[in-house]
Amino acid sequence: MSTLINAISAPTQYINVNGTNYAYRRFGKPSDIPLVGFQHFTGTLDNWDPIILDGLAQEREILIFDNAGVGNSTGETPDNVADMAHDAADFLKALGITKIDVLGFSLGGFIAQYLADKYADLIRKIIIIGAAPQGVKVLERFPELIYKAMQKDPAERFLYIFFTATEASRAKGKETLQRLFTRTEDRDRETVQESVLAQMTAITRWGSDPVTIDLKTIQHPILIVQGSKDEMMDSDNSYQLFKALPNALLNYYPDSAHGSFYQYPEVFVNQANYFLNY
Amino acid sequence: MSTLINAISAPTQYINVNGTNYAYRRFGKPSDIPLVGFQHFTGTLDNWDPIILDGLAQEREILIFDNAGVGNSTGETPDNVADMAHDAADFLKALGITKIDVLGFSLGGFIAQYLADKYADLIRKIIIIGAAPQGVKVLERFPELIYKAMQKDPAERFLYIFFTATEASRAKGKETLQRLFTRTEDRDRETVQESVLAQMTAITRWGSDPVTIDLKTIQHPILIVQGSKDEMMDSDNSYQLFKALPNALLNYYPDSAHGSFYQYPEVFVNQANYFLNY
Repeated sequence: MSTLINAISAPTQYINVNGTNYAYRRFGKPSDIPLVGFQHFTGTLDNWDPIILDGLAQEREILIFDNAGVGNSTGETPDNVADMAHDAADFLKALGITKIDVLGFSLGGFIAQYLADKYADLIRKIIIIGAAPQGVKVLERFPELIYKAMQKDPAERFLYIFFTATEASRAKGKETLQRLFTRTEDRDRETVQESVLAQMTAITRWGSDPVTIDLKTIQHPILIVQGSKDEMMDSDNSYQLFKALPNALLNYYPDSAHGSFYQYPEVFVNQANYFLNY
Repeated sequence: MSTLINAISAPTQYINVNGTNYAYRRFGKPSDIPLVGFQHFTGTLDNWDPIILDGLAQEREILIFDNAGVGNSTGETPDNVADMAHDAADFLKALGITKIDVLGFSLGGFIAQYLADKYADLIRKIIIIGAAPQGVKVLERFPELIYKAMQKDPAERFLYIFFTATEASRAKGKETLQRLFTRTEDRDRETVQESVLAQMTAITRWGSDPVTIDLKTIQHPILIVQGSKDEMMDSDNSYQLFKALPNALLNYYPDSAHGSFYQYPEVFVNQANYFLNY
């Protein structure tokens, strides 16, 4: 316990794969199967809530990374989920990792579904937070919602997207924001405009492109987590996702929006660790 | 630890309230607020899964009872949920209990909602399994479903009502049945026909009587648990219940029916204990 590496202190490392320099961090209790985090729209290594990662890291190794073009990673961000998943698979292969658990948040939850379908053997269990299945209409208004959010200052924007309008939810949001800035050194750079636009295209295409994944055939144990009022994904879509998947657990949290697990970090960590250990 | 009283060994006790002799059992870790179980249609003290009660009893006192006319309790079973709730409140008052957590299963989940509305101060937290809000149409076909179930032998009937048709779910059902018969002495008597019919009326009336409870005003923390395919309650109704309640968590389990918590006892105990301790 003399060198306690956690979410705040884990150094950013790099690995070059096919010309792309991927930024990543690894920490936590050594385990055969690491839990790999797939981040939301625009999110970087520093947008994972340290209280959550450290709670999960008590029982397994955590691996978070910036996908191509995101944060400190070089390369070009694809404009579709499939290529993001392929990039992630290449990155994991380069690290010599052959089996993972997945923590997919929002856009990361789309990639999780694609990986489960096309890289089934790579994956043991999956946690999907604030996401939706392919082909959902709500993503048509994603660019409009983001445009509206961009009119606000960064703190307000964060609260607007991830929390509800109640005082209780916003207070939890402010606590989350503080936690996201606990790390002061070796922080990730903000995702550049070009990558953000490619991600936006990928997200809207998840709603409008032809559906390619037959969720009924996905056998992995999946834990779905969602807030009661996620406008961005429409909370109902997590129930639809649950109903389509043969082996999923579904957890909804009260008075919460897109950042449900930010708002109830202790509840989430308990459920996630139990699910992954079960 | 020399006298380990658990779900199997807890003696049946009796208390006379307004002329009704109520059968009940109390055990578990002494706690200021007992968790009181409200049982499903026809269910008695012996229909609570001992592995679940003992898991919960590790962290709190458990109190289960037969409501009026049910199992070993004397008296007349009311034909409506409101009077069942009033009877329960009288029973608890007679025991000198002024604050409880509620574990309401099916019909017990209806009583839980009524208590939360009309006896708000009596209750701290509530767990509702396999239930639905007032006024749901699905209860119109409850008598028909039960009639269909009655054509089967008791073991098949149990599997038909509480588990899905998959081999995996049925296998869990058979394990549950075994657990329900672990207790061999001091068992409850089966609920008599007259009480069963009154309960059936109460359940159908929960769907057809005017809605009296405004769920939006219920402030208690509530954990809702449901299976993916509960035909009796229609699984969707738990999502509707969640959306109407301001402070509820919702957990769905895969490939499971009306007996979701029977099928995943370890998952349920973890979630329930966490929720009650949180």
